[in-house]
Amino acid sequence: MTVTIKPRQQDFPQWYQDVVSAADLAENAPVRGCMVIKPYGYRLWENIRDPLDAMFKETGHENAYFPLFIPKSFLEREAEHVEGFSPELAVVTIGGGKELEEPLVVRPTSETIIGHSYARWINSWRDLPVLINQWANVVRWEMRPRLFLRTTEFLWQEGHTCHATEEEAERETLQMLDVYERLSRDWLAIPVVKGIKSDSERFAGALRTYTIEGLMQDGKALQMGTSHNLGQNFAKAFEIQFQDQDGQRKHVWTTSWGASTRLVGAVVMTHGDDKGIVLPPMVAPIQVVAVPIYKTEEEKTAILEAGRKIVDALVGGGVRAKLDAREHLKPGPKFFEWEKKGVPVRLEIGPRDLAKGEVVVVRRDDGTKRPERAGALAGLLPGLLQEIQAALLARAQKLRDENTRDASSFAQLVELLDGPGGFVRAYWDGTRETEASIKEKTKATVRCVPLGDAPAPGKCVLTGKPATRRALFARAY
Amino acid sequence: MTVTIKPRQQDFPQWYQDVVSAADLAENAPVRGCMVIKPYGYRLWENIRDPLDAMFKETGHENAYFPLFIPKSFLEREAEHVEGFSPELAVVTIGGGKELEEPLVVRPTSETIIGHSYARWINSWRDLPVLINQWANVVRWEMRPRLFLRTTEFLWQEGHTCHATEEEAERETLQMLDVYERLSRDWLAIPVVKGIKSDSERFAGALRTYTIEGLMQDGKALQMGTSHNLGQNFAKAFEIQFQDQDGQRKHVWTTSWGASTRLVGAVVMTHGDDKGIVLPPMVAPIQVVAVPIYKTEEEKTAILEAGRKIVDALVGGGVRAKLDAREHLKPGPKFFEWEKKGVPVRLEIGPRDLAKGEVVVVRRDDGTKRPERAGALAGLLPGLLQEIQAALLARAQKLRDENTRDASSFAQLVELLDGPGGFVRAYWDGTRETEASIKEKTKATVRCVPLGDAPAPGKCVLTGKPATRRALFARAY
Repeated sequence: MTVTIKPRQQDFPQWYQDVVSAADLAENAPVRGCMVIKPYGYRLWENIRDPLDAMFKETGHENAYFPLFIPKSFLEREAEHVEGFSPELAVVTIGGGKELEEPLVVRPTSETIIGHSYARWINSWRDLPVLINQWANVVRWEMRPRLFLRTTEFLWQEGHTCHATEEEAERETLQMLDVYERLSRDWLAIPVVKGIKSDSERFAGALRTYTIEGLMQDGKALQMGTSHNLGQNFAKAFEIQFQDQDGQRKHVWTTSWGASTRLVGAVVMTHGDDKGIVLPPMVAPIQVVAVPIYKTEEEKTAILEAGRKIVDALVGGGVRAKLDAREHLKPGPKFFEWEKKGVPVRLEIGPRDLAKGEVVVVRRDDGTKRPERAGALAGLLPGLLQEIQAALLARAQKLRDENTRDASSFAQLVELLDGPGGFVRAYWDGTRETEASIKEKTKATVRCVPLGDAPAPGKCVLTGKPATRRALFARAY
Repeated sequence: MTVTIKPRQQDFPQWYQDVVSAADLAENAPVRGCMVIKPYGYRLWENIRDPLDAMFKETGHENAYFPLFIPKSFLEREAEHVEGFSPELAVVTIGGGKELEEPLVVRPTSETIIGHSYARWINSWRDLPVLINQWANVVRWEMRPRLFLRTTEFLWQEGHTCHATEEEAERETLQMLDVYERLSRDWLAIPVVKGIKSDSERFAGALRTYTIEGLMQDGKALQMGTSHNLGQNFAKAFEIQFQDQDGQRKHVWTTSWGASTRLVGAVVMTHGDDKGIVLPPMVAPIQVVAVPIYKTEEEKTAILEAGRKIVDALVGGGVRAKLDAREHLKPGPKFFEWEKKGVPVRLEIGPRDLAKGEVVVVRRDDGTKRPERAGALAGLLPGLLQEIQAALLARAQKLRDENTRDASSFAQLVELLDGPGGFVRAYWDGTRETEASIKEKTKATVRCVPLGDAPAPGKCVLTGKPATRRALFARAY
């Protein structure tokens, strides 16, 4: 289980693989492109999933569950949708020992099968809005898989809502984007840019796709969640209609929005360092680990007892604390292990300090150590964890801001992308052709046109044509 | 949305379908054998899943996640296992637009793919026990599907553990059976019989399968959860070995245990009546619904305000309470709707009662009504909900006990099964042949040999051969 961690500066992709493995988060499954999420990684996912689920419920959504299998013909009803997803499908052709008459697609996303239900559920304006979310596994065949970031099967949530008006659907789409931003900022300590996707990066079948984009430590962007205003595209494909208050039958306006286990990868790549992953306290499975240090049997008894007392007090105060009482490991290897696993705070409980009534408190994020009164820990640590959470966000924010630059010429765009990387803001004429050409020349894509940037006249960085908006370019995962 | 409910006495299967539909729990999906779990049904499932998950964690288990797809060859490594599951498999043969070299089975259960991981994770006795659970969807092709009870895709949890000794594995198997019993009794208000399955009803690949069996209102048994001692069968098939403290390499002993969305069906069939489902308060998505009754605008304002106050006080006290303030429905239809949905307590808030400071409290389980002081409700209702929970369990217990009978001859066995149904205890010689013959003649199976029944000499009800144990026979779902 000893994993050497490649330094980030030398080989970031290898570093990522190393720290994911060293922290025991996940591993590749025997089925190509799939992963096994190990208990520690799954607990981290639970700690991301649960607050997100709570936010969905707070904003009036309910969970439901729709089938894993989708008749192939359903996908074909929305032309862009089937075109977008066809190359990635896993298809069941045999069921119960027989060749199926109609092949079943393993859901890559559920707009179609859910649209089919909604068409039956909705009759009147009184049935609207429909605000439903589903936690599920989905499958998109993946040629170049990477744990959490891109896997053939992944876990996610997908919200699917119906509204009586276009305005309401747009409001919902943006509300859920805000929910994702809040989760990222307040729980994952990751600042994101909210923006709108270009046509070529739009969800297949959507009118508009909004995104939250994070910037990883290697200067590459990561799409962390998307929220789609689907207009009436799926409503028309599946005949989702309602009788409005004016007596007319109308198509509903739908939205969908999703975030996935990819968020675990975002946490790793935003906060990790060369010793391992670094977890924001809000989502850390273990927030505080106490490591006893002793030599004699007598010391052991006293130290373990003190450790248990401290941990019990912390747990009683709502801190996820753990005493590492394993006897076959010395303190050193324990320190390394918990560092690799990114536990925010380590307590070193040794006889000399304890004689003074003290314990050494070590922060994972900055490595600082300081002695604290043992009896004061339960009062102190909730605040310290908040401080660490804020420090991680501030550090990520600083890195993001320092790596967001403007390019006023194509040469400068190339120079920035080839050099420091990061986000590069540049005027873009808004066409698919220009985007494709820039992508071909630089390997960077339009991550989004940030929301809130006021339109201002400029010239496209590639074509020189008039442009009103600056896009955020970056190489991306 | 008006569903006529067929009385239970007339046609129990139709009644089941009617109340599931009337309560808006679930519906058939367009994919044969699959279901859509609607928000109310899913909330009920969440309220079953969450306490079960908490009990798993209390008993030292962690969650993880393994892939949906299993290489076909994995299943074939355990002979009984592949034979048992082959007829029910859904098989993916196309992925990413290409025919796959090795077909992938959509997991019907995960012993094999998890066994493959465990073989890599376990090296030493220090790595044991491994105590992991997974919440997942599984697929078993179903020719005669019934919502919740038997669906091609269903949601469940599957625990998979590894132990150093046979004794420890057996202890774990029985511990998890106890957890299922606790969930059934304390949350679902369903008394169960714990017992051991016959060889022909054993899980494919297990040494011993333990079960909890509930008795439904139509006198049929329902298997509600199973816990398997897998012996070393999967350990040998997947080479899951460890170096023991004595330096020897040994195969581990494994267990697995599962419970599914079928438990929702168990709740419906145990407690429902001719008006709809009846939910135990511990798992009811809404425990108390307040229905305002008014005629004039003036009354409306006062009543809604009083209702909101009452509901806020209840919610503040931890009760899942809801005010039904919908204006387009009169109180009568609201009463019917919440009865169909099985909400344990209804509060009728009308002007005349309220003038006296009172509210009418109606119990769903027995239909009794009584006025209570509005100000006392928040103090009163938690106790009333407990009382209802206990009453449902007592009623189910009584029904179960009254429908558990002894047969000392085969004629009597047939008579009991054809007549009142229920559980019939009878001596059985323990052979597969006798069981098959009884099944053929009576359509009843050995549900289990109950745990805790002391062996006593007797004669097999069919063959007259000496027998030491009585089996529980019943027709079953």
